[in-house]
Amino acid sequence: MTDRIREFLEARRRAGRDVGPCLVVDLEVVRDNYTSFAKALPDTRVFYAVKANPAPEVLSLLASLGSCFDTASVVEIEQAMAAGATPERISFGNTIKKERDIARAYALGVRLFAVDCEAEVEKIARAAPGSKVFCRILCDGTGAEWPLSRKFGCTPDMAPRVLEHAHRLGLVAYGVSFHVGSQQGNPNMWDGALRSASSIFRDLAERGIQLQMVNLGGGFPTRYLKNVPAVKAYGQAIFRALSKHFGNRIPETIIEPGRGMVGNAGVIEAEVVLVSKKSREDEVRWVYLDIGKFNGLAETTDEMIRYPIRTEADGSATAPCVIAGPSCDSVDVLYEKEPYLLPISLEIGSKVLIEGTGAYTTTYSSVGFNGFPPLESFVI
Amino acid sequence: MTDRIREFLEARRRAGRDVGPCLVVDLEVVRDNYTSFAKALPDTRVFYAVKANPAPEVLSLLASLGSCFDTASVVEIEQAMAAGATPERISFGNTIKKERDIARAYALGVRLFAVDCEAEVEKIARAAPGSKVFCRILCDGTGAEWPLSRKFGCTPDMAPRVLEHAHRLGLVAYGVSFHVGSQQGNPNMWDGALRSASSIFRDLAERGIQLQMVNLGGGFPTRYLKNVPAVKAYGQAIFRALSKHFGNRIPETIIEPGRGMVGNAGVIEAEVVLVSKKSREDEVRWVYLDIGKFNGLAETTDEMIRYPIRTEADGSATAPCVIAGPSCDSVDVLYEKEPYLLPISLEIGSKVLIEGTGAYTTTYSSVGFNGFPPLESFVI
Repeated sequence: MTDRIREFLEARRRAGRDVGPCLVVDLEVVRDNYTSFAKALPDTRVFYAVKANPAPEVLSLLASLGSCFDTASVVEIEQAMAAGATPERISFGNTIKKERDIARAYALGVRLFAVDCEAEVEKIARAAPGSKVFCRILCDGTGAEWPLSRKFGCTPDMAPRVLEHAHRLGLVAYGVSFHVGSQQGNPNMWDGALRSASSIFRDLAERGIQLQMVNLGGGFPTRYLKNVPAVKAYGQAIFRALSKHFGNRIPETIIEPGRGMVGNAGVIEAEVVLVSKKSREDEVRWVYLDIGKFNGLAETTDEMIRYPIRTEADGSATAPCVIAGPSCDSVDVLYEKEPYLLPISLEIGSKVLIEGTGAYTTTYSSVGFNGFPPLESFVI
Repeated sequence: MTDRIREFLEARRRAGRDVGPCLVVDLEVVRDNYTSFAKALPDTRVFYAVKANPAPEVLSLLASLGSCFDTASVVEIEQAMAAGATPERISFGNTIKKERDIARAYALGVRLFAVDCEAEVEKIARAAPGSKVFCRILCDGTGAEWPLSRKFGCTPDMAPRVLEHAHRLGLVAYGVSFHVGSQQGNPNMWDGALRSASSIFRDLAERGIQLQMVNLGGGFPTRYLKNVPAVKAYGQAIFRALSKHFGNRIPETIIEPGRGMVGNAGVIEAEVVLVSKKSREDEVRWVYLDIGKFNGLAETTDEMIRYPIRTEADGSATAPCVIAGPSCDSVDVLYEKEPYLLPISLEIGSKVLIEGTGAYTTTYSSVGFNGFPPLESFVI
């Protein structure tokens, strides 16, 4: 929470415009985060993961700071370019692309693509000839709050064949990527993946192909309720692992922070719609907010991300409650398995501030489930 | 799948407009469903649950057929009215409402509101004086494919106090509602809830308050992969339970079908974007579609709803596969725990038809996660 956000929200309330939940993102925090990444990993290019928050103001700021962009679709490529990024600063990082989207990206000037299988390599060879490709590998996500599924990447032993296939088809077999899991709390988790990557580099070198780049992915955490290591610690751990596995031939590296770039820059203001109990004997209150899983807080699914919630009554006596969203959908419950402590004095109409919500909130919103509009967003 | 939908999709393909996934809803099926409900429960008013699919054409058809509407928000009330429903045919069925939204509904003419606690009753007494309220009670959701959480409703023993409170504040204590769980496969599950409802009726009568209505909720299933009982069986079971618990004083009843009204009226056409394996030894292919959890198929969460998927190669040899969506989000996997059998000959660019997708698809779509647009929808 910053003074700028606090002042913005106060002005919004005074103007009587606080009729629904909204996210406020402070660009000064985004700027600080970018600077921290650049300092912690001085030889690494930053590719901001646009999907985390594609607000034009965020993209423009990052473009002006020199950031590159990791994109998931042609629309995101266009958003990055509209913000001032030239195409050589854009990676089409989705391993699942339609061939016509690859062709559109190529026409826009993009020359860097992710793959994890031979079929995707073939699409790129046809639709984006001569481009650079990096192969995503599966790696261990232990320590991540949101470990990734096996959806993206192939096993490390399959990667050399994928990259060699690219080379044979006239593409530049450029490197290896991996992702150690979202909200990764352990800076040492890059070590194992870098060991795999270096092994792939050696394997390809034996086949006469010189890989050049390791994409270190995202996973850099933002602070929710628990403290997380500073970006500096990640930089040091990654540099140690790079030296250990690549010796004095350290490759070009890139990172793809999303949550780590914008998560702590945003605060959602929401309103308590109802406080009730299910029976006269219940000890736990239900607190219903005007924001839930379908209009911004999708990442509370399975209670994986536990956002800090601030209220005007903080410091007064608290009691456990279940927190739920406003929709007529019974899955729209935010925290129930582990009830959340909120002030007893919280009542209908009270405002709450949900911190650390700059990433993965606005675009996760449904287009209009139950007639509720997508989360309103302000970037200041 | 109907001939009309098939012809529509063929024309779309011929016109080269099949560049992304789309939902096609056949109004003839919606009309048949409405007629089945009206026949199976001739003395029951139908309140279509707008949230299931608020397409204007669907609402207009239902309004013209005489349907009433169960709404979750002021926007849905406005949608129903724009489709031709008069306010006395609209229920504000969300138990979680802002007082200013109650006031707006009241100003629009709505006089029927759901409650499940005294605090909500007080809001309605202030913002919608003299209106009818029904109290939602918790009930057993055994047998439902998607059993509801405890989010909505109070225990049956608390309901009389809530309704008496409404009566004291000048509201019409009108009745009781419950929901036996979404996609409820057992028509006899209404019996227990109706027993609770009749007990509340008697309790209130002893306090000098005559309740008039039982809202039987939704839960009427649509056919996915397994057969479900016909609406007629639900009508018979409900009538039996009503007679058993209310004798010859059967109250006014309403139902709130959503999925049962539009689920089987819709088919999504999607495209295979990638077919791959994670390692050379893997037996299970990954099939990636251009539709996933964030642009229409949110109800595959936890693999609860298993949609029938048709392909042009149906009838040929099949093999198990994991099915995933197109986004750069590792949770965007549709079926993995129990792999799905699809034809071995399925390849990149193949079209697939996902049946039973008329409900809870378009509005569950994210506003633009990963730059992918919300699910396109056609009503024919």
